Amino acid sequence: MPTVLGQNQYGKAETRVVRVTREGPVHHIRDLNVSVALSGAMEDVHLSGSNASVLPTDTTKNTVFAFAKEHGIASPEEFAARLAFHFVSGQEAIGTARIRVEEYAWERIPAPGGGAHSFVRRGRETRTAQVTYGGPDGGWQILSGLKGLVVMNTTDSEFHGYVKDRYTTLPETRDRILATEVNAWWRHAGDGGSAGTGGSAGTGESSGTGSGEEGKRDWDGSYEATRGHLLDAFAGTYSLSLQQTLYAMGSRVIEEDPRIDEIRLSLPNKHHFLADLRPFGLENDNEVYFAADRPYGLIEATVLREGATAAVPPDLTNLP
Amino acid sequence: MPTVLGQNQYGKAETRVVRVTREGPVHHIRDLNVSVALSGAMEDVHLSGSNASVLPTDTTKNTVFAFAKEHGIASPEEFAARLAFHFVSGQEAIGTARIRVEEYAWERIPAPGGGAHSFVRRGRETRTAQVTYGGPDGGWQILSGLKGLVVMNTTDSEFHGYVKDRYTTLPETRDRILATEVNAWWRHAGDGGSAGTGGSAGTGESSGTGSGEEGKRDWDGSYEATRGHLLDAFAGTYSLSLQQTLYAMGSRVIEEDPRIDEIRLSLPNKHHFLADLRPFGLENDNEVYFAADRPYGLIEATVLREGATAAVPPDLTNLP
Amino acid sequence: MPTVLGQNQYGKAETRVVRVTREGPVHHIRDLNVSVALSGAMEDVHLSGSNASVLPTDTTKNTVFAFAKEHGIASPEEFAARLAFHFVSGQEAIGTARIRVEEYAWERIPAPGGGAHSFVRRGRETRTAQVTYGGPDGGWQILSGLKGLVVMNTTDSEFHGYVKDRYTTLPETRDRILATEVNAWWRHAGDGGSAGTGGSAGTGESSGTGSGEEGKRDWDGSYEATRGHLLDAFAGTYSLSLQQTLYAMGSRVIEEDPRIDEIRLSLPNKHHFLADLRPFGLENDNEVYFAADRPYGLIEATVLREGATAAVPPDLTNLP
Amino acid sequence: MPTVLGQNQYGKAETRVVRVTREGPVHHIRDLNVSVALSGAMEDVHLSGSNASVLPTDTTKNTVFAFAKEHGIASPEEFAARLAFHFVSGQEAIGTARIRVEEYAWERIPAPGGGAHSFVRRGRETRTAQVTYGGPDGGWQILSGLKGLVVMNTTDSEFHGYVKDRYTTLPETRDRILATEVNAWWRHAGDGGSAGTGGSAGTGESSGTGSGEEGKRDWDGSYEATRGHLLDAFAGTYSLSLQQTLYAMGSRVIEEDPRIDEIRLSLPNKHHFLADLRPFGLENDNEVYFAADRPYGLIEATVLREGATAAVPPDLTNLP
Repeated sequence: MPTVLGQNQYGKAETRVVRVTREGPVHHIRDLNVSVALSGAMEDVHLSGSNASVLPTDTTKNTVFAFAKEHGIASPEEFAARLAFHFVSGQEAIGTARIRVEEYAWERIPAPGGGAHSFVRRGRETRTAQVTYGGPDGGWQILSGLKGLVVMNTTDSEFHGYVKDRYTTLPETRDRILATEVNAWWRHAGDGGSAGTGGSAGTGESSGTGSGEEGKRDWDGSYEATRGHLLDAFAGTYSLSLQQTLYAMGSRVIEEDPRIDEIRLSLPNKHHFLADLRPFGLENDNEVYFAADRPYGLIEATVLREGATAAVPPDLTNLP
Repeated sequence: MPTVLGQNQYGKAETRVVRVTREGPVHHIRDLNVSVALSGAMEDVHLSGSNASVLPTDTTKNTVFAFAKEHGIASPEEFAARLAFHFVSGQEAIGTARIRVEEYAWERIPAPGGGAHSFVRRGRETRTAQVTYGGPDGGWQILSGLKGLVVMNTTDSEFHGYVKDRYTTLPETRDRILATEVNAWWRHAGDGGSAGTGGSAGTGESSGTGSGEEGKRDWDGSYEATRGHLLDAFAGTYSLSLQQTLYAMGSRVIEEDPRIDEIRLSLPNKHHFLADLRPFGLENDNEVYFAADRPYGLIEATVLREGATAAVPPDLTNLP
Repeated sequence: MPTVLGQNQYGKAETRVVRVTREGPVHHIRDLNVSVALSGAMEDVHLSGSNASVLPTDTTKNTVFAFAKEHGIASPEEFAARLAFHFVSGQEAIGTARIRVEEYAWERIPAPGGGAHSFVRRGRETRTAQVTYGGPDGGWQILSGLKGLVVMNTTDSEFHGYVKDRYTTLPETRDRILATEVNAWWRHAGDGGSAGTGGSAGTGESSGTGSGEEGKRDWDGSYEATRGHLLDAFAGTYSLSLQQTLYAMGSRVIEEDPRIDEIRLSLPNKHHFLADLRPFGLENDNEVYFAADRPYGLIEATVLREGATAAVPPDLTNLP
Repeated sequence: MPTVLGQNQYGKAETRVVRVTREGPVHHIRDLNVSVALSGAMEDVHLSGSNASVLPTDTTKNTVFAFAKEHGIASPEEFAARLAFHFVSGQEAIGTARIRVEEYAWERIPAPGGGAHSFVRRGRETRTAQVTYGGPDGGWQILSGLKGLVVMNTTDSEFHGYVKDRYTTLPETRDRILATEVNAWWRHAGDGGSAGTGGSAGTGESSGTGSGEEGKRDWDGSYEATRGHLLDAFAGTYSLSLQQTLYAMGSRVIEEDPRIDEIRLSLPNKHHFLADLRPFGLENDNEVYFAADRPYGLIEATVLREGATAAVPPDLTNLP
């Protein structure tokens, strides 16, 4: 046969699990979309259709629900790590498990009575996480991220001094709207905390992504802080280009958090064009804009801690 | 010719206008999606292609941008009323103008420096408005609304005592998650404030939707209050059916605001099914749910002030 | 209580049923998305939460699957009629049932072997149907439709002679691209074939939507013919305005088919703007276009057989 | 500064260009969505905001329109290659250009008159292409692909013999529906035809992707043939697992076309679950299915010609 099998993976994508935890009348919820991708010694199933090494994708879905019950969902990262460890350590054929999670945030509706079991979905950005475990040899990679965080500066943005070729018609500007949708993946130092996760990360027997006391990572706090850094840097940067803003955002995250070594940002330039009101005898002093859909500039870059090695694929999607 | 023309309308849909207002370093924004639909004496253009009575849709788009400059955007309702009045009073062939608006909410990013020109899009629900003006004879109809407001109660919801026929398999339940996405249109009393709007509503010469001092409606405040009533009623209702919750939400709005006479609610039942964990030897005490996509129950109803006449079409879409 | 209940309806939306019929090695499929909306004496469930008159939406879903087995799916219209009749005749509290159906078309993949059980989804438009049954008194309304049929003429379209006001900047044109996405609902004469359906439509005991031999309507043939008329009229009309094209499309359908009395068309003008290549020293002789997303003109109208009464709501959505 | 810049790229995404070519009354169209991503010596713009090396994304958009006029659009691959070559050879700072294209297919509407300028969009799959040019040293990589091709076998699919662990509940089956949406990228041998493209690919001076006579690749024919192989292999494979079907599809392409060395397939398992009709006293002999949305199995793999080196990133998205 003249063909061979290359990289391959399989699993159940987009299992939507909602976990309710009750403290008397006070309820807490976590609302996730979990995608499992397993890879390993899978030649047989591709070449002959033998499923002898295949754990069904339906089983990986069941495992998500069962683990939500058995272990709760402390954070997307911890939950993903637990699942990844389970599949690799439990199935001989599985060498690597990659778990992707989206989390949808909810806020409480102030309770008229006194109960606390009513929620409104926040909207805004979607939190993401991706945990890859390659066994004792392959180790851990833990990425956190977000997508769909839409931001705008109505001033303090210029664009000029650029290359002009035969096809350049864009006028230079000293004051424009700068708007984008932040899509980001950041990689935790030590491949997600090598000191903390070790071989038993996510199993609850150790620190890092597990539930051990010492060294336990506060993933929710880390997420909130990182989003805050991104927003602060976006708002606080006087921008000469979206690339400059991107780099300011990425480096802010790495400078502020010694446990993050790398961040990949994908920033569509959500163009707001000045409406041309001169035909109507009106002056548009940066007051009225047309918010365009397509096309859009797309600015993407990785920012790294000096000395770190890039490990987030440039083409990493933020889809399940 | 054996065919005749029935109801017809035309205009530019989904003009995306962003208006920035500057108070020194403090900027304010309104971000709208405006759809214009005009109707009137339009037989000729349909039958012969004569455009002699047709104001181009491109012109209606230009008008949106020009009005944003000339008059600002005080609220979706006021802006829509101004546009509707303009088209009907300015074009002989136009008998009725219907303006639909979506508004996207933004929150400020706390400014590191001290400026106030940075924003993050809130997400959550989209605010909507629809203003129809039929000239001095046809008068005003002003609807406000929202869509995409997702809410959940993790308890205090039962469902039992229903009809069982040959095809009924659903088990009764005394405790379930109740989640929905609120889509609503509410109609303002007096067809949007007959006392206030009159023939010159939206023109700035009168009260109601205009900028007159006395009787001026606080549309933003009304919107916030109505959303609050919907959330409160949802959270505060011990539910025996989604219909009951719907009615409680609708009647709460009408009871709390004498200026709203009618509300139409469309509530998809966002099913959260208990994951069956018994095969794994686990008990699921209302802790782990599968959030389903399709199919979904869809509950729709109009709630009216006693004595009012229904005027919101049951099939009214919340699309542009 | 100062509030009263207005129009209301409920049911399961978007039940995705696929029906396979086998003739030996030759398989046939119908792939539907079915939405049920029931209305009637439903005050109690709204006011008190009593479900004594409520057939669960889950049951309406089950009925869709069971009917697909028991009766097959001869066509969207016939299947919808059968369901509507069932709910109204079987439940005392239900006065009216409205069934909406989307159908997704599949084509055969030429079989390498000789079997005939492989299919590729066609894409292109989605076929739709809506059947409303109001009992012996309310009778039948049968609508057929389509959505998402995207068409383009690269010439034979002009636009000029229109009204110019202060805000008009659009240049007149004698040659432009005319492109639209056809969204249509058409109403069958005699409220869906009064002679054919009668009180027992869809029950298989009579003609019309049933399976009786005489007078049985060929719904698939009618659909194909109507789509053909729409395409022919679009392609064959030298257009001075999209309104003119719309009317030509609508009247063609009614003229060609005596059993269709009314059609509602919603045609977004999918603008293709000439790219301005003059800055690059290039002439653009109607060769290079920018296909814009938003905003778009939206042209909507009803065309009626002379003497018929309009019954398709102008705001009727093409959503489930 | 403790941070450094990693991989980065920028450009205009999703420029929607439609090209009309006229042969007398016969018109031809190509309808593309073009995304440009440029990378090179871009430290300055990220670190200081200096745009001295930045060709604006607006210019890359203009170039798409201008090239459509100057060179026409012979195929997505040829058009993308021409653009890639232009940016790398024309801008000193640009080391690599990656052009992604989506193409939307249109079919002719049989013309009532005799003209040939009316079209209906086919729907079905979207054709894709990605051409990367890294200059004389980096060379060419040419990928072709498709997305959204939905296929179904109503029989000849089994699934059994798989691993059972504590969380496995899936019953084995000897006859199921197998349905998927084909998403594929395939890589052309010799990095897109090394013999044909050389340093001047896409410039029209040479063969390969250019317009030279000898050695010119028939990209449209290649695409049609590849899609045909994928469909044939899907339809003709008796399937014991979706992995097996995937491998059969991928190897078929490589075996049939010596100029394709690698293919990456991403196949979501579009589950069709048998409706349980037993509670209604009905037997479901593989006739009635529920088409589920989420979750879904996701099977992904690369198939390579023996001896070839994998070069398509596993995470390569099919998005613009």
